[in-house]
Amino acid sequence: MGKVLAEITMSLDGYIAGTNISNKQPLGINGEKLHEWIFDKATETDKQWVDALQKSSGAVITGNHTYALGINDGWKGVSPFSAPAFVLCHSLPPKQVDGFTYVAGGIHEALRLAKETTGEKNIWIMGGANTIQQYLRAKLVDELRIHIAPILLMQGTRLFDKIGNELVELDKVEVKDSRAALHLVFRIRK
Amino acid sequence: MGKVLAEITMSLDGYIAGTNISNKQPLGINGEKLHEWIFDKATETDKQWVDALQKSSGAVITGNHTYALGINDGWKGVSPFSAPAFVLCHSLPPKQVDGFTYVAGGIHEALRLAKETTGEKNIWIMGGANTIQQYLRAKLVDELRIHIAPILLMQGTRLFDKIGNELVELDKVEVKDSRAALHLVFRIRK
Repeated sequence: MGKVLAEITMSLDGYIAGTNISNKQPLGINGEKLHEWIFDKATETDKQWVDALQKSSGAVITGNHTYALGINDGWKGVSPFSAPAFVLCHSLPPKQVDGFTYVAGGIHEALRLAKETTGEKNIWIMGGANTIQQYLRAKLVDELRIHIAPILLMQGTRLFDKIGNELVELDKVEVKDSRAALHLVFRIRK
Repeated sequence: MGKVLAEITMSLDGYIAGTNISNKQPLGINGEKLHEWIFDKATETDKQWVDALQKSSGAVITGNHTYALGINDGWKGVSPFSAPAFVLCHSLPPKQVDGFTYVAGGIHEALRLAKETTGEKNIWIMGGANTIQQYLRAKLVDELRIHIAPILLMQGTRLFDKIGNELVELDKVEVKDSRAALHLVFRIRK
């Protein structure tokens, strides 16, 4: 059985997007600086990380807001994921695309459907913050995989927010340093 | 000329103390888990880090709240710093101790006094959050040295808060992984 991963890039001060998110600027003001490790400043280490993530993911889960922003902009109308992707949404979005399944039944239903497709591979909860928060709150995440970008974004959407009040202890299982990010893997103690 | 360092331990979700801070619990609920790398779970790497920090610091700056909590509890009535320490305070605290100078003139005045004593050594702004935030806001910090503890504290005092809205870019200059912390050094671009 694969693991359930919450994997996302965060600034050192805890933001996964800036303010003023729009179709033109899906990561908000300065948000594109979070992902320099994937694009302009990618090193071999970074490329291998992305490649391994795609290969080890048997399913992807995304929120409807992230989907709506991504599908027309960064994803250019096609799924960027090599695995089937499940979109949490209350109703069918206007634009439906091959590779995505639209799930109205909430986070448990999306996870159940994802598990049916993954086999031994992992389930990658890729965002946005609200989706990851829902899965963390429900204690359904096995590993937090955080890429820390070397910036202070100062404002925007915080990753660790609205998850509850109870301490969560982590085991740090991997640390990989590259030019424009620090790749961290933590196992969540249960 | 030495550097001005803001060096402190933070949970992965950005807190440097828990809630319910008191003399009995100076780091708040679960806050002691932040510092396991210094105490119960210290490795050779961690001990060397603390030792190098003490040796390279020519002066320490602390807030009055941190001082008031520390001096009777964790510091047991004596200065824990090998260098002269400057306490930001509006009036003299009830308990005054050798090794501390009490500065009523604010952050610039404390930094000026600290610089007079440091020579080639660094100035270590050790906390609390409010003190580090004031120095960051005034753009007086050269390096952020953050020790990330593998916990989600979920609530408490955030380090990166009230510092302004402007993006800050960092150069990651050192990463050291140890059992109970990840030691990170970032140079602040100016």
